[in-house]
Order: sequence, then C-alpha cells, then structure tokens
Amino acid sequence: MREPEDYVQSLKWMPEGLHLLDQRLLPRECRYLVVQDAAGVAEAIGAMVVRGAPAIGIAAAYGVALAARRRYLEAPSAWRQGLEEDLDLLAAARPTAVNLSWAIERMRMRLDSCTGDPGPALAEEARTIHDEDIRANRRMGELGADLLGEPGAVLTHCNTGSLATGGYGTALGVIRSAFAAGRVTQVFAGETRPWLQGARLTAWELQQDGIPVTLLVDSAGAHLLRQGSVGWVIVGADRIAANGDVANKIGTYSLAVLARHHGVRFMVVAPTSTIDPNAPTGDHIPIEQRAAEEVLSVMGRRVAPTVEAWNPAFDITPAKLIDAIVTERGVLRNPASGSICALLDAEPVASSAD
Amino acid sequence: MREPEDYVQSLKWMPEGLHLLDQRLLPRECRYLVVQDAAGVAEAIGAMVVRGAPAIGIAAAYGVALAARRRYLEAPSAWRQGLEEDLDLLAAARPTAVNLSWAIERMRMRLDSCTGDPGPALAEEARTIHDEDIRANRRMGELGADLLGEPGAVLTHCNTGSLATGGYGTALGVIRSAFAAGRVTQVFAGETRPWLQGARLTAWELQQDGIPVTLLVDSAGAHLLRQGSVGWVIVGADRIAANGDVANKIGTYSLAVLARHHGVRFMVVAPTSTIDPNAPTGDHIPIEQRAAEEVLSVMGRRVAPTVEAWNPAFDITPAKLIDAIVTERGVLRNPASGSICALLDAEPVASSAD
Repeated sequence: MREPEDYVQSLKWMPEGLHLLDQRLLPRECRYLVVQDAAGVAEAIGAMVVRGAPAIGIAAAYGVALAARRRYLEAPSAWRQGLEEDLDLLAAARPTAVNLSWAIERMRMRLDSCTGDPGPALAEEARTIHDEDIRANRRMGELGADLLGEPGAVLTHCNTGSLATGGYGTALGVIRSAFAAGRVTQVFAGETRPWLQGARLTAWELQQDGIPVTLLVDSAGAHLLRQGSVGWVIVGADRIAANGDVANKIGTYSLAVLARHHGVRFMVVAPTSTIDPNAPTGDHIPIEQRAAEEVLSVMGRRVAPTVEAWNPAFDITPAKLIDAIVTERGVLRNPASGSICALLDAEPVASSAD
Repeated sequence: MREPEDYVQSLKWMPEGLHLLDQRLLPRECRYLVVQDAAGVAEAIGAMVVRGAPAIGIAAAYGVALAARRRYLEAPSAWRQGLEEDLDLLAAARPTAVNLSWAIERMRMRLDSCTGDPGPALAEEARTIHDEDIRANRRMGELGADLLGEPGAVLTHCNTGSLATGGYGTALGVIRSAFAAGRVTQVFAGETRPWLQGARLTAWELQQDGIPVTLLVDSAGAHLLRQGSVGWVIVGADRIAANGDVANKIGTYSLAVLARHHGVRFMVVAPTSTIDPNAPTGDHIPIEQRAAEEVLSVMGRRVAPTVEAWNPAFDITPAKLIDAIVTERGVLRNPASGSICALLDAEPVASSAD
C-alpha cells in the first residue's frame, strides 16, 4: 500500500512557513508558494492556490498557528490582541466550505489553553488536524469501496484527491481504494469548468497512480450515464446540512439528478468536519458567487465578449438524490432519513489500516 | 424589423467562390476563408470553420455548385464524370447533421436536369436553398415565439443563430422574435464545451442585437433551472428521427432531463430538412466522435495531461422529454405522439413576414 507521503502534498508545514502547492499552475508546473501569516493564507485560499474543502480547513489551521506565532513575536505579553482579526480574516476567505470554520474553531479551543509562546502548540494542533484528515480519508476509502458491487466504471467530478485534502482524498480516496480492491476498472472524470479541476488535477493524480481515467466535458455526463456502463457517481462535499443536503462543486447537483434518472447510484464522501449541524437544510448554506471573468475566460485567456456571466462556485444536492454519504465515522445510506447529526456524537469507527 | 443582411453572414456566395466566416476565430477576429471546390468545402465543414446543421447543409449545396463548375471547366463534355466523388466527399464531411445529405440530394435532383454549363443553375439552386432557410428561420421564429407565455428568461445551448444557419437562426431565431415581441426578457447561454459556441458565438450574436445575455458553464444549468426563473429551454437540432428523437450538440440531453425534472418546458427548433424519415429512432442516428485533443485542450491550449478523453459531439434526446418541435411547416406538440413524419408531406405554412 502506498503511504500518504507517496502522494503529492498540497500543504507542507516547514519552519519558515506553510508551503502551498499552487494548484492554479498544475499540471504544467509544480510550484510551492510559502505563506507566513494569516493574510497570506487567506489570500491563497481565496485565489484558489489551495482548494478543496478539507485542504482549505487544514490550511486555515496552519494559518492560525502562523498568526499566533507572528502576534507573539510582535508582542509576547499581548499576543492575543489582534489575533481575533486574523481568525476572522481566515474564516472569511471562502464562504461555502464549512471545514474552514470548523478548523478555526478547533484551533481556537487549543489556543484558549495556551500559555507562553503559542507557536509550537498550535503548529502541533494543526499538524494533528492534518494527520487526522489523512487517516479519515483512508478510512472513508475502505468504507466507500465496500459499497461498490461488481467491478465497473465510476464517474467523478472536480478534484477530491490528495490535492484537495491532507492526502489520499475523499471521493478519490474511495476510487483509489476501490481500484486497489478490483472494484473500479475505469474512472470517468468531468473536466469541471470553470477551473478545470477534473482535467488539470484529477486526471493528473489518477494518471500518476496508473488508474485508467477518461476525461469528458461536463455536459457529456448525461450521455455517458445513458450508455449504462457507470454504476456509481462519486463526489466530495464542501458542506453537508443537518438534513443531508450537500453543497459541492457546481455541476454536482446536475449529476445527481441525472444519476437518479438513469438508475445510477450517487455517493458523497466527506469527513464529519464537513457536516454543519447549524445549517438545517441546503437552503441555509451560502453559495459563493465568483467573478464573471472565470466564465468569460479559460485559463486566463478571454474567449467570450464582455457580457454578463453567472458563476456560482457550488450547488446544492438534496439529500433525497443521494444514496450514501461516506464519512470516517461510518456510512449513511439514504441520508434523507435524517440520521446525519447522530454521526457527530458517534465514536470514530476503528480503521483496519490504523 | 432587421433584415437578414443586418445579421452577420456565415456564408457568402461570390463569383470567385464561397466565402466562409471562420467561426473558430470568433469573436476575436472576423475572417472569411474562400473555398473553391468540394474538397475545400468538405475540409471547412470537418474542421468547424462552418458549423450548425442548416449552415452545413447550405455550405454543401454551394459545394456541389463549385464542384460541378470545376468539373465542367476541366471537361465540358464529361463534367458528370468524377462529380459523384465530389458529392461523396461532401456527404462524408460530418456524420450527424442530416441537412448535409438533404442538401446534396436536392442539388443532385437539380443537376440531373442540367444541360450545358451546370454552374449557373446549380449556384442558383444553392442560393434558393440558402434563401429558403432564412425564410424558414423567420417563420420558426414567429411560431416558436407564440408558444412562450408570460415574459421571462430562457436557457439555450450551443449556437443556433445567424452563424449556424443561412441567417437569423433556429432556436436563436425564436429567441430573437420572442425578445422583439416582449416574451423573452433574459437569455441564459451555456458556454458549450468543448468548442465554446455559446461563449464565443451566441453571446456575441445576442450582444450585437442588444438582447440581455448571461453566460454560464454548462454544468450550472441544473442549479439555474432550480432557481425557477427559466420557463423554457430552447435548442436546435442536427437530426430528428421519425419518432421525434433529436440529435443535437452534446449537453442537450442533459438539459432535457433537467428541464423535465424541474417542470421547465423544452423546445427544439429546426427546419424540416433536419428530419430524417429513414432513422426510425435516435438509436439509428450516427453520433460523431471527435478527437480527444478537443477535450484535453481549450482553444488550442493544452490543459490536461495526456490521458484518454471521450468526445461525442452530439447526444440523443428522446422525444418524450420534448414539449414542442418547431419547424417552418408548423409546431409539433408532444412529438412522442408520432406525428412528425406527417409534417414532411404538409404544405408549407405561409409566413406573415413573407
């Protein structure tokens, strides 16, 4: 079995700061940006240097450590002053992925108990969040792979692999585990406009793993599902409401409707840090609207005339269209049944890989 | 009312040959290519210099005229020799749009009765096909606009305007007529990967007309329809089977499923030359598979690593998902009822614009 460090790492914590793989340049170029304070992390999240709900949460956790370290250096006896601003800045970097505020709240609990230099303790806590995410991905990989039946093809959307997480991946973790177990023979990947995470990131990750991947334009998903070779659509999530509604990359809802229409099953894979018990339904999840220019252009090159563009970065998939939500604490079949919040109180499921 | 010549012309017949607006360069650059023989027309159709089922048919008709003129110049007493090869070359340029073979068959009937130099007679016949297409578009515009109810927004896909036809447009013709009549207030246009006809061509045509257009990535269609502001999805067609199944640009089938799911009505607009009575159902329509590179790249720039790509240029929408097919001879509501072929025997409907 490949170890976490065998996969590309989107985040690396080093003494001089947080190294973030600039995912906007992939697969053409592998370049890390080094950020050293909360503003740098927030800017990197907003500009999509680092993306993917779990990776955003981990980046924010390291961002809190960087912020506290800087505040302590500037004023060792008053480092808590101003830190709240740093946390607010990080929390506002992107609105939809709840992992961001989840990670910040967890870091806040740790920093409340800090005495003296908070740097080492907070860096350790961020590293723990990072490690837990990798273990959660491994566990979700096993649980999700167990759901698949006969060997066959799956369709995925956006990027949910090592690049989008602490390592291994959510939906792509399931696909990796299922491929290793012989339950996935072929992966179809939607290119995922406007940022082309499927074409640039998912195709690249799967190619490196030697997993057969076939790219398609997003609008071809319906025609593919009609052919009958795809058994499951497998995606990640940016926020899961208390009723099981899922916010995820724009295009996810389309695939969920199409999967149901064609009798194809639909799986969401996300750690419990993605569940927002304060959002009763998907209608309570803020959907980030990004710049029109992302639609009018492709990879920075303008293709359309100067017209209006509607660019919601996410959409909401109602729980009733989802066959299973896979978390590190277990699998929810038919999440519309309302069992999701019970997971948050459940003991973690022991992983056979631990 | 704007006249046909007020709209951009994708094809112009001139003494020196057929001028084709190179649609691959739009909207950045307006450049016409001049083609002078069947091979030139066939190559331009295959390479998407000219695209859109009606425009392809018209280009092929002019291609027959060019071919006959050249054969006559080379051998005035034996010009019919070799001409069949030219016709085959034109017919094979692209496989899905039936307007191509329809136009060639009509030109063949005319050339069978030619004596002496066939050039002028065939050029006149091609010009007639071209003019008839414009009149058909105007008539479809009226008929389709009459179907729309309260003023509201519509969603369209690909490009079905002046660029895709002899002039005015099929689905975009309906949108133009409906906007003029106050029945369309806003047009949402899917960008239509991989060739981005929506972003490059439809947005450009509507902008020139002063019709409010908002671009979106194709996968955002479901999220848009869920908002409830769109009353109709309006698209063109490349071939309509005898049972009312419709082949059209990849992504059309997806929108048809999504429209039905959301209670949004779905209109197909195409001249009767698009109906193929020899295809009993959509399963009998050949779907063109184009090069993987079109998906791996955007506008000629490689974005993905070298992996497999699945690139069907069209998909099939079953008749049961279509609320109305609008032709120049009348409107078929619920085409699944099987009334489509009767249209081919019907008298043309007189247009109040004639």
